Amino acid sequence: MQNFQYYNPTRIIFGKNTIAKIAEHIPEHARILMLYGGSSAEKNGTLGEVRFALAGRTVQEFGGIESNPTYETLMQAVEIVRREKLDFLLAVGGGSVIDGTKFVAAAVNHISDPWDILTTHGVNVTQALPFGTVLTLPATGSEMNSFSVITRSETREKLGFASPRVYPSFSVLDPTKTFTLPLRQVANGVADSFVHTIEQYLTYPADAMVQDRFAEGLLKSLVEIGPKVITERENYDLRANFMWIATLALNGLIGAGVPQDWATHMIGHEITARYDIDHARTLAVVLPSMLRIRKEAKRAKLLQYAARVWNLHDGTEDERIEAAISNTEGFFQSLEIPTRLSAYEIGPDAIDGLIAQLNVHGMTALGEKQDVSLDVSRRVLEAAL
Amino acid sequence: MQNFQYYNPTRIIFGKNTIAKIAEHIPEHARILMLYGGSSAEKNGTLGEVRFALAGRTVQEFGGIESNPTYETLMQAVEIVRREKLDFLLAVGGGSVIDGTKFVAAAVNHISDPWDILTTHGVNVTQALPFGTVLTLPATGSEMNSFSVITRSETREKLGFASPRVYPSFSVLDPTKTFTLPLRQVANGVADSFVHTIEQYLTYPADAMVQDRFAEGLLKSLVEIGPKVITERENYDLRANFMWIATLALNGLIGAGVPQDWATHMIGHEITARYDIDHARTLAVVLPSMLRIRKEAKRAKLLQYAARVWNLHDGTEDERIEAAISNTEGFFQSLEIPTRLSAYEIGPDAIDGLIAQLNVHGMTALGEKQDVSLDVSRRVLEAAL
Repeated sequence: MQNFQYYNPTRIIFGKNTIAKIAEHIPEHARILMLYGGSSAEKNGTLGEVRFALAGRTVQEFGGIESNPTYETLMQAVEIVRREKLDFLLAVGGGSVIDGTKFVAAAVNHISDPWDILTTHGVNVTQALPFGTVLTLPATGSEMNSFSVITRSETREKLGFASPRVYPSFSVLDPTKTFTLPLRQVANGVADSFVHTIEQYLTYPADAMVQDRFAEGLLKSLVEIGPKVITERENYDLRANFMWIATLALNGLIGAGVPQDWATHMIGHEITARYDIDHARTLAVVLPSMLRIRKEAKRAKLLQYAARVWNLHDGTEDERIEAAISNTEGFFQSLEIPTRLSAYEIGPDAIDGLIAQLNVHGMTALGEKQDVSLDVSRRVLEAAL
Repeated sequence: MQNFQYYNPTRIIFGKNTIAKIAEHIPEHARILMLYGGSSAEKNGTLGEVRFALAGRTVQEFGGIESNPTYETLMQAVEIVRREKLDFLLAVGGGSVIDGTKFVAAAVNHISDPWDILTTHGVNVTQALPFGTVLTLPATGSEMNSFSVITRSETREKLGFASPRVYPSFSVLDPTKTFTLPLRQVANGVADSFVHTIEQYLTYPADAMVQDRFAEGLLKSLVEIGPKVITERENYDLRANFMWIATLALNGLIGAGVPQDWATHMIGHEITARYDIDHARTLAVVLPSMLRIRKEAKRAKLLQYAARVWNLHDGTEDERIEAAISNTEGFFQSLEIPTRLSAYEIGPDAIDGLIAQLNVHGMTALGEKQDVSLDVSRRVLEAAL
């Protein structure tokens, strides 16, 4: 096992009718900015529940945070917080709203140009406003981690930052709030949390028995709830399990003490930035090709994945590995998520541009062994056409 | 899944040579009391490493905390902290030293008689000194939770308390510090963490897929490392996995959102209080009988345990359940831990006294359904003779 530090102070408030509890967890005299996305949180009543829970408090609102939240939009929120001297943020939404809120929290009192926070990946974040979240879309794990990914529209750049200053102080996870989600978003969330787990698991053996068992538990559970969690809209137990899985897939726990990959994510971000394809869908396109191209480096863990997650015990090693990758593709397809770039009408002529963007962003040595060069990324994209 | 709150702000600093980092995590001008147990931490050099890491700081020392730490001893430490105006505690040891330190942390500024903290099980703890830990014995999980169990010698009472004020601010887990442990203590730690997991898992189904998978992952890993982790003293990877398993077995994670039992622990505590038998050894005596006596209430989870932890798929339900319980006994025995009271020369005449003590402590309706009456506890003890 590798040496590690694990620290995660976010309080999770999980279950039915838990939004009512948020006032207990926000300082009494806080001047709050509630941030949200589109109209769905209004229509499904979540915003109303939050307003009711905060009745009598000082609350301003900032709506319109996009999926793939933009620097340009968020800087408007930063201006409001500064002007109105607000001191507590409350994100109501999915990963995009929460990621955006983390950026606002760090940017408000940032000493230099806030875009620095992204270009330095968060190392220069020395303070942030406290904030809580009310999660409506299980997917990114942002509700219990210190990561954020922001897009700059002007330059079509999508960059991430991390800082221990931007753990939410609390996150409310009420599975009933997912009942009205578009099925496409639920499917994306399942794929996203699956790939988050894979990025921390499918590398090389590191004598980390529990991290492996926990990751396999998340993967097997996702396979088990599979398409049902999407179609059975009001099945509380399925949605509750999915919501907790998505949080645990990226709260630092399964990644503590083990090598991590993230090459699939980095390539996926470039596809989203240039072609505006949902984050999770880019992962479903990149991952299977990544696993095939990097089969030798990942052989031992691919065999373990085949055996423990997919119960594949027969055939040669290569047959079991190919069956596991093929099952992974089938899993995404069962969620009605394509696994080829051609499904998005992206052809070979797109690859040069994507590789150029990876180069611009310094993504020239990705993966758990930093051996995913631009050439390897090119082969992965070619295999994903 | 049941509604739950999960909150655990302890920073884990895990791996080789990590004691050197503790100074970074203690406030610069802290007046520190280092608490420890017997002479082993001195002999194996752990205390020396801590002293070296804190060179130049204000540090006083308090040794001699017993296994099953006593109120009487700990109140001496409380007096020193008060007299010397110390403001940070550092526990160096296993669960007993850490549990004791939690009590000291809560007692120093407690508004009334500190024994109240135990008799009210911590509900009246409104503040505590901050403290960190350097763990030398993986077993109780105390390094990453808010529980503590204290014994009053005078009255032979063993009572627990819990409070969100007594999470360690950090815990250093260096697996090499376990190399010099007596094998008996390592065996006890394996059994203890196994039963901690069982208490939160082997109840009734609650649609908590991940909690089940995580608990099964811990149990399977313990079975896998089994006696090897005890006998292969300097096998870093085995000891590292065991150390992290023991922490995760009782840090609140696998118990969030599921029913919990703890009847085995409550009965075990009475056996320790009266007969001074190691905590873990009392659990190994009580658990198998508890599972047999409560087979019907636990049927569904016993079958799941048989299938997923022990790979038992053949035979009738009752055969699989008995095989799983029998394997559990075999597992304890493989650690050279007996599973019968007779091994400690405790006979039928002891039972009335143990039941009377359970009654005195209000332990009249134990277990996940509060249906472990004194009569059921009696039958469990009789079956464990």
